[in-house]
Amino acid sequence: MNTEAPDDASIAAAARLKPIAEIAAEAGVPDDALEPHGRHQAKIDVNRLGAGGPAGAVVLVSGMSPTPAGEGKSTVTVGLGDALAAAGHRTMIALREPSLGPVFGMKGGATGGGFAQVVPMGSINLHFTADFHAITSANNLLAAMVDNHIHHGNGLGIDPASITFKRVLDVNDRALRRIRLDSGARRETGFDITAASEVMAVLCLARDMPDLKARLGRITVGFTRTGLPVTAGDLEAGGAMAMLLRDAFKPNLVQTIAGTPALVHGGPFANIAHGCNSAIATNTARRLADVVVTEAGFGADLGAEKYLDIKARAADCPPTAVVLVATVRALKMHGGRAKDELAAEDPAAVAAGLPNLARHVDNVRRYGYQPVVAVNRFGADTREELAVVERFCAENGVRCAVTEVHERGADGGAELARHVAALLEETPSFRPLYPRDADVEEQLGAIVRTVYGGDGVEFAPEAREQLDRIRAHGWERLPVCIAKTQYSFSDDPARLGAPTGFTVRVRELVPKTGAGFIVALTGTVMTMPGLPAVPAAERMDVHDDGTVTGLF
Amino acid sequence: MNTEAPDDASIAAAARLKPIAEIAAEAGVPDDALEPHGRHQAKIDVNRLGAGGPAGAVVLVSGMSPTPAGEGKSTVTVGLGDALAAAGHRTMIALREPSLGPVFGMKGGATGGGFAQVVPMGSINLHFTADFHAITSANNLLAAMVDNHIHHGNGLGIDPASITFKRVLDVNDRALRRIRLDSGARRETGFDITAASEVMAVLCLARDMPDLKARLGRITVGFTRTGLPVTAGDLEAGGAMAMLLRDAFKPNLVQTIAGTPALVHGGPFANIAHGCNSAIATNTARRLADVVVTEAGFGADLGAEKYLDIKARAADCPPTAVVLVATVRALKMHGGRAKDELAAEDPAAVAAGLPNLARHVDNVRRYGYQPVVAVNRFGADTREELAVVERFCAENGVRCAVTEVHERGADGGAELARHVAALLEETPSFRPLYPRDADVEEQLGAIVRTVYGGDGVEFAPEAREQLDRIRAHGWERLPVCIAKTQYSFSDDPARLGAPTGFTVRVRELVPKTGAGFIVALTGTVMTMPGLPAVPAAERMDVHDDGTVTGLF
Repeated sequence: MNTEAPDDASIAAAARLKPIAEIAAEAGVPDDALEPHGRHQAKIDVNRLGAGGPAGAVVLVSGMSPTPAGEGKSTVTVGLGDALAAAGHRTMIALREPSLGPVFGMKGGATGGGFAQVVPMGSINLHFTADFHAITSANNLLAAMVDNHIHHGNGLGIDPASITFKRVLDVNDRALRRIRLDSGARRETGFDITAASEVMAVLCLARDMPDLKARLGRITVGFTRTGLPVTAGDLEAGGAMAMLLRDAFKPNLVQTIAGTPALVHGGPFANIAHGCNSAIATNTARRLADVVVTEAGFGADLGAEKYLDIKARAADCPPTAVVLVATVRALKMHGGRAKDELAAEDPAAVAAGLPNLARHVDNVRRYGYQPVVAVNRFGADTREELAVVERFCAENGVRCAVTEVHERGADGGAELARHVAALLEETPSFRPLYPRDADVEEQLGAIVRTVYGGDGVEFAPEAREQLDRIRAHGWERLPVCIAKTQYSFSDDPARLGAPTGFTVRVRELVPKTGAGFIVALTGTVMTMPGLPAVPAAERMDVHDDGTVTGLF
Repeated sequence: MNTEAPDDASIAAAARLKPIAEIAAEAGVPDDALEPHGRHQAKIDVNRLGAGGPAGAVVLVSGMSPTPAGEGKSTVTVGLGDALAAAGHRTMIALREPSLGPVFGMKGGATGGGFAQVVPMGSINLHFTADFHAITSANNLLAAMVDNHIHHGNGLGIDPASITFKRVLDVNDRALRRIRLDSGARRETGFDITAASEVMAVLCLARDMPDLKARLGRITVGFTRTGLPVTAGDLEAGGAMAMLLRDAFKPNLVQTIAGTPALVHGGPFANIAHGCNSAIATNTARRLADVVVTEAGFGADLGAEKYLDIKARAADCPPTAVVLVATVRALKMHGGRAKDELAAEDPAAVAAGLPNLARHVDNVRRYGYQPVVAVNRFGADTREELAVVERFCAENGVRCAVTEVHERGADGGAELARHVAALLEETPSFRPLYPRDADVEEQLGAIVRTVYGGDGVEFAPEAREQLDRIRAHGWERLPVCIAKTQYSFSDDPARLGAPTGFTVRVRELVPKTGAGFIVALTGTVMTMPGLPAVPAAERMDVHDDGTVTGLF
């Protein structure tokens, strides 16, 4: 980024958007499958799509362990999609929807940047088509029905202290992490952020409406006094929840600044949830396009691991190619430089940070893929610093491309697109990390030792008890979804680079029987974020003509 | 309703809807002001409307004190609109949006019934265009910023115990009425339902975007340790809140089964809030149509009083005609029959219930209007029972029409439409109940003695302290918005008919400086409802093709 370049908001505002019906027609979406939401957004009724040809190939974009500012993974995903489209590939992009929590907290908007953005930026970042709100509603209806059931006599015999199902809101609200209900059941509980909710995971993993309904009905809310699980189905809540999610379950179509179609749908966080856009969007994109470029959140230890071990198996959408986004900035941080020193040239620090990238490369190879490293170039990066990464890749037989999609759009991603296109000619053999019948303890051990590079797992006493209960209910072969800091391979955000000699401490194991996985909470990672001392919200405004400021 | 008639859901499903662009074009909404949300709903960008001619006349539909099942006031409003349109009047309907809380609780959908419905029923009742969710988000962002401010050092010196601003959700969730935050400020608070929130009131009373922003900034969240009010503006939250409400502030256009355009926008409850659809929708409808039929919730003691004393003055939209909906059922209940006896013929009980209707008629006259009584006919009503009401009206010089819009649509409202059309030829002189400079205690006295028929007001000690504080801050001339049971003129839901010899007990006075009114909580009315023993949610479902069941 050089300082003379126009800023992201100006670029988005200056973009000439096509009517969404035109984008849809070009993408092969028939008119009667399109439900417009404003002029430039639409939902797709997948029941009205044609049969389609062979499923398109998936390109999974993940990354090295990020800095707090983010490495531009969404930007690279969008730019790569634009570049593949420009090279003549029938391409669709599949991204997660932004959560309002981070928008008003630290991060601002989450729709890419520069000349690699999905638009309309303002709407996508602000409610979009209200999917998160529908998820919040469905989640909180179930929560209300749980306490209401207890209030009206508790016919099912629910033990209030055993209730694991929490309310959610799409806001960073630290004060709601732990609350005591002083009406009704008078119990301790708390709110999670919507992006961490099981309903979000269910919506993102369900193949179709019957599967969505079945998964909602299977959500465990707590246990009876005799230790039996109580589900949403037991409370007759599944139908109403599915009704609330009817429209939210339909993928959202938007476009990039370059006019490439993008499905932006579902938004679990990658550090506290499974981190991938919805399976129905990915698979819809595969019906419509030859190449689908999708992103899995944060570093490959979180997003890619969950894409490959959870989503790809649940929704039968293994990738054909994997991209790892790296930045000179992040390498310098992993090489020992402080966050406020990352703009200063320091090739030695870049080199010192390479072990972090190397471990991510090794991990991707373990799943059966030869990754492409995309070095997302920032304005302060020097030729010499970039050469350090290129040399590392050459020496290790890793494809590498420096991308400048932020400043140059599709042109800045042309080389990356060529590498990816070459990989799409090959037929990788996808190897999940653990077999489907692995016990959750074995799974955790495999992920920590193989992907994270640690020595093993230790369980807090409460987690150990939860593990026993999980086994007693026969849930131990569900895949594990690890909630962990994104900054380190370990559960300690301060251990940068490629740490070794650590164990990961599991403090809680929460069965999510609707989503079909078991959440393992590690370290101090929180399922409800807080706002910073000066929230981004303070600088935001809307003008009388509806234009917004402060989203970037 | 006779049992052979098709049910509401079947009628709605069988309706042949016009594309919303066609409805808009017929209503005079230019294409570039229309933002479609699906095929049959759209938002209107009022900045893109033409200047329009003279403002249309407002017909305010209110009613007698209702039974728990409701008297079909929305149904009559829709049927009257259809009948006026059928008679050649350029008509638009303005209704509130349904809240999800009652939809899943007792009430089911809230879009009229029979052949007098706004459609698409399923969507309008389920999230609609997500306005309620945007209000929830804006409200809860401010709440999070309050506790976050305290967490990060409390520079403004907010006294945590003084915080009056609560979080909200659009769900009936009894367990959230009183909660203790065990993170951050560790204070007692609670959730209200979104329909009761000040942000809802602000959105419904604001004239335009600058007014919306100014009102949001003026919301008082609590007080400093030295007793000074702390506002959303002090926390720099107003801009972000307005940004979250940018699209929610645009009125929503739908149609009736008969094709009459309807703006469905904003949804404060009438028992715990001010009970009217948004001022911007009412005034937009007046720019587009000659006659605007709008509803004010529950009985005229709640909805009409607030329309006339609060909304009409805040948004300069006094009605030209007032309709009071009555039913034989409700009259029998006020005449002493139990809720399960209302289907049995009993002309004497109808007569015994007339004092309730008579007091509502007198009240409307006090505001300067000669009301039309619309007797909404139910299938069990006999000719003799209906004659009791007609005779009462004839003897008291009150226009009266029996309506059958539920079963016969516009035809069933033709006589009512003729009465209303006759009133529209006259020029009533609107007289608010109290002058703008009346003190809140005087206002309360006037409403209780004149409208409710009681002896006066008593204040709980806490309310008395709040009154002193309101005066200390100079807020005592803001209009009062009374939260009271809808079942009785008094604050005791059991005192039916036209009770006398009672005082109304104000238990809390909450200044809503953004909305510009002071909420007086009376009796045991709750700002967060609960679910019944068998919530309506339990019978709801969605089918694979997207059709929903259980909403009626």
